[in-house]
This record gives sequence, C-alpha cells and structure tokens, in this order.
Amino acid sequence: MEGNNASSQTSSPLCLQNVETLINSVEAFLFDCDGVIWKGGKLIEGVKETLEMLRSLGKKLVFVTNNSTKSRKQYAEKFHSLGITTVSEEEIFSSSYAAAMYLKVNDFPRDKKIYALGEGGILEELELAGFKGLLGGPEDGRKNIQLKANSRFEHDKDVGAVVVGDDQYINYYKLQYATLCIRENPGCLFIATNRDAVYTMFDSQEWPGAGCMVSAVCGSTQKEPIVVGKPSTFMMDFLLQKLQIDTSKMCMVGDRLDTDILFGKNAGCKTLLVLSGVTSLSDLQDPSNNIKPDYYASKVADILKFSRQ
Amino acid sequence: MEGNNASSQTSSPLCLQNVETLINSVEAFLFDCDGVIWKGGKLIEGVKETLEMLRSLGKKLVFVTNNSTKSRKQYAEKFHSLGITTVSEEEIFSSSYAAAMYLKVNDFPRDKKIYALGEGGILEELELAGFKGLLGGPEDGRKNIQLKANSRFEHDKDVGAVVVGDDQYINYYKLQYATLCIRENPGCLFIATNRDAVYTMFDSQEWPGAGCMVSAVCGSTQKEPIVVGKPSTFMMDFLLQKLQIDTSKMCMVGDRLDTDILFGKNAGCKTLLVLSGVTSLSDLQDPSNNIKPDYYASKVADILKFSRQ
Repeated sequence: MEGNNASSQTSSPLCLQNVETLINSVEAFLFDCDGVIWKGGKLIEGVKETLEMLRSLGKKLVFVTNNSTKSRKQYAEKFHSLGITTVSEEEIFSSSYAAAMYLKVNDFPRDKKIYALGEGGILEELELAGFKGLLGGPEDGRKNIQLKANSRFEHDKDVGAVVVGDDQYINYYKLQYATLCIRENPGCLFIATNRDAVYTMFDSQEWPGAGCMVSAVCGSTQKEPIVVGKPSTFMMDFLLQKLQIDTSKMCMVGDRLDTDILFGKNAGCKTLLVLSGVTSLSDLQDPSNNIKPDYYASKVADILKFSRQ
Repeated sequence: MEGNNASSQTSSPLCLQNVETLINSVEAFLFDCDGVIWKGGKLIEGVKETLEMLRSLGKKLVFVTNNSTKSRKQYAEKFHSLGITTVSEEEIFSSSYAAAMYLKVNDFPRDKKIYALGEGGILEELELAGFKGLLGGPEDGRKNIQLKANSRFEHDKDVGAVVVGDDQYINYYKLQYATLCIRENPGCLFIATNRDAVYTMFDSQEWPGAGCMVSAVCGSTQKEPIVVGKPSTFMMDFLLQKLQIDTSKMCMVGDRLDTDILFGKNAGCKTLLVLSGVTSLSDLQDPSNNIKPDYYASKVADILKFSRQ
C-alpha cells in the first residue's frame, strides 16, 4: 500500500547481525548533538571511542544540531573541552549557521539589517557570514519595557529579516521588537532556526526549545516562518552541496523522531534513532508514531559495541 | 449558495436610516473595551454620552473584554476613573473572569492547584471564585533561572490547570513552569484566556497579545488550549445564562473581526464593527476577509450621532 510506507515500515534494533551492513553501506555519519553526543555538559558514554572507530574506517563525520544558542566555533570548543579534540568547525552544521547560510545563498541585501531573537550563536554566525547591521541577541535580554501612556516603542525600519531561535532570555521587549519588524517592515523575512518543542539543556531535564519562541512570534504576527534547521530541507540541501555524497550513503543518527529522523528520511538517508535523548522506546513503538527509523539503539556506542563483538 | 454566507454578506455603514432599527431591535449591547470604549488610558470621544443614551432607553449594557491583565473590579475602577461612573462590576465580563468561571462550572477539584502565566487579573478572579493553591502570576515575573549543570527545575505536581493570558512580564521561568505542568502533570488543563495576536495598550501602538504567550506554550507543549475568551462559545454561553435575553436581541460592538465580530456572529447576535481600534475600513473590505459585521461605524458615538439627527 503506497502512501502508508512510513507507518508500516518497522525499525530494527541495532545488533551484531546488522551493524556491519550499516557501516559498510555508509560513507558519512550525520550526528545530532544534544541527547546523542552529550547531555547538557556531559559526554554520553562511549561516544569518543565510537567516533574514533568510524574515523579510522575513513567515514566522514558531520554534526548537525538544531541548537542555535552557540556558533560552530563554540560547538567545536565544546567538543574539545569534552575531550573530543578531532572535531573541527567545518564538521559542524548548527541551525545558527544554517540561518546565516540561508540569508547568504538567498542574497539578502547587504544594506538591510537583521534582528535576532535568540542567544549569541545566531549573531556570531551572521557576523562570520559578513552581515552588518545586526540587532538584538543577548544584549536585548537585559532590556525592560517601561510602559506608560504616550510612550512609543520604536523599531528599526531597515530590518529586513528576523531570526528566531532558542532563547532563555526571552522577554516582552524582544517579542515586541520582532513582532513590529515582521508586521510593519514590508517584505521582512521571518526565519526560524528550528521548531523543537523542548531540548535537553542539562542532564535529563527538558526545557522549552526554539519551538516555544518561534510559536510566540507566530502568535503575535499571525505569520509562519521559514525554518532552516532540521527537519527542513534547506539544511540537507546545503549539506549535500558541501559533502558531495549521495544521501543513500549517509546515515542520520539522532534522538528525535520529528526532527532528526524525519530530516534523514526526507532526504533518503539511512536513519538510526538513539534512545539516549528525548525519545523512549515506547515513544518509538507508540501506534500514533509514524516516523520509523531504519535502526534504533540505546546509544551511539552500540555501533562500536556490536562491530567489535 | 450555502456555506458562503459569511463572505457574500455585505456590511452596512451605520447611518441615519438604520440606527433606529438597530436600537429598537436590540435589548442588550455587548461592548468590547480596548479600541471601543477606550484606547490605553483615554476614553474614546462620545462614549460616555452614548452609553448614557442607551441606558436611558432601558438597554442592558455588557462589557466583554479579552484583556485578562485586570480583574472585573479593576475594570470597574478604570471606568470610574475615566468618568463613566454608572458601570458596575456585574456588567463586566473579562477573559480573566471567564477562566475562573470555566474552572468553576466544570467543577475543577478544590484540592488541585492552578498556575497562572499572566498578570494580576487572572489570580484575582480565581481567588474571588474561591480557588486556593494559586501559583505564578506577577510574582514569577521577577524570577530568573540560574542554569547550571545538575540543577533541576522543580514544579508542583498538584497543579491541575495552567491559565495563560496577556503577560508583559513573560520570561523563561514562567514558560518552563507552565510547560512542565502541562507536559508532566497527568490531566493538567491548558486554558487560554484568549488568542488575540496583538492588543492596543496605549494610544495607537499595538503590542503582542495573549496569542503570543499562548502560542509559546503551544510550541513547547505541542498541545492546544481550551480558549475561554472571545470568540470561544464558553463566554457567550455563560453570558446568556446570566442575561436571559435571546441572542437575536443582542448587538456585539467591537473593533476586531476575528474575535469580537466572529464571537457575535457565532452566537447569532447583531454585530457592529467600530473602526476606532485595530481594524481599518480596508481590512474590513479586503477580499481575503470573510468576517462581515452587520454594521460598521467610525466609533461608538456614531450610534448617538445618527439617533439624534
């Protein structure tokens, strides 16, 4: 039955019998980070050794994260500080970078300004991509609105794009700024780094993710954003252009069905769900779930474990 | 053509020829407040005289507002401070009151707690309705999250309802609190006072409305709320029970098509759009708009003006 492929397909647990086939058929492994490589500030057990093994087999490694709070440079530093010193900036594709690349490949006018409702990563990537006139970001986290009669909230009419991402410093000032730009500046783009409902910031606890901030701006502007992170195809198209590897020879490894696995499946990659992050085995097996990865495993290190046995 | 009534119906400008018919056929006038009675801290011209005229004709007056930042008591005080001393608390139906009444008529368990992501009006109405165990509200506007490894954000497992409304003090603490209650407390209700995208706080400028805060929580919980304010039918059903007047003998007067006018039309009331708030004549006449009031006028005082000529 066509049209029912996604839900009728079953997922296989990664095991001795299939890990070699997987490794041999794949040239590039794409890893999500939060819940896959690390949880908050802690590396997940066995990640380092697994990455080393894959590198030693000549596999290309790519780290694709929807977390926009950091820039690629900051991500590379995080890898290094956690003891994985072989990861370079060029191997990292964050949604903050994707936002900057989206504006770049779409020739965003250099005389227009960009407002960021988000943390430092977005502004840093926009700056590295050569954009000037950057507004918002962490600085506006300290701004308060003094509401009184006859006071008018002014915004820059030259803002031509608003980029919204994860922001633990969300406030009414930023929401009003972003809203005014999108509602009142003709043609102003509304770009979302991603729409993850929650993300794991530290250890096991989940916190409101970019989906929260993005939806807030949808609510006040009644507009829908252009999403550049997973599962949008923009990130994959951009990645493909960089890697020049056929998607059938890629494996997307992630902990989220609706972003990571969907992202991989949409592109025609092999997919491996790891249960070390937000998705549990019962979420995967729930009848309401129709996003089925090719494989699932408790964690990334299972690739190493089964390949050695 | 059935099913096309809304868009094919035309709206008449209020004028000498139709105002008497309107007044004579209506027993109760339902007024929105922001953009209709006042704009921010200023009464709209001619409102006082028009309300006095309608009262002198024996019409019932009701003030139905989606703004949840104030309680009915605070609204009555606002009317009085603006020189309209005849308005009583009982004539006011705010979405903060509607939230409290929703929980009351649905027998919300008295041993459960309620978390408010909103300003003072919600908590005040909940308290007046006899609810105990009230959490959140203005107090949480001052709370900051100290994010560090191994720190855990705790929430009260006894919260059985989260009420979200307008909140200029929105922050990550409140979003996380509301999100955890809705995601983790079994059966926890998610109630929205309303979903207005923006509202006019002072004079002519618009600010993100409850639609912004409510959507933020939808984004982080991936759940849809029960909406109690306009245009939801809850408020109207509750009003009908209080007023005991047939809806065909009511006229809803408002400045918003998607809340006020839709609310009135859904219930079978006559509808009058005033252009003194967020909707312009070109919004009304835009081909994409299919919410057509029976009448439109520049402001409430037109009722008086045309009835006197």
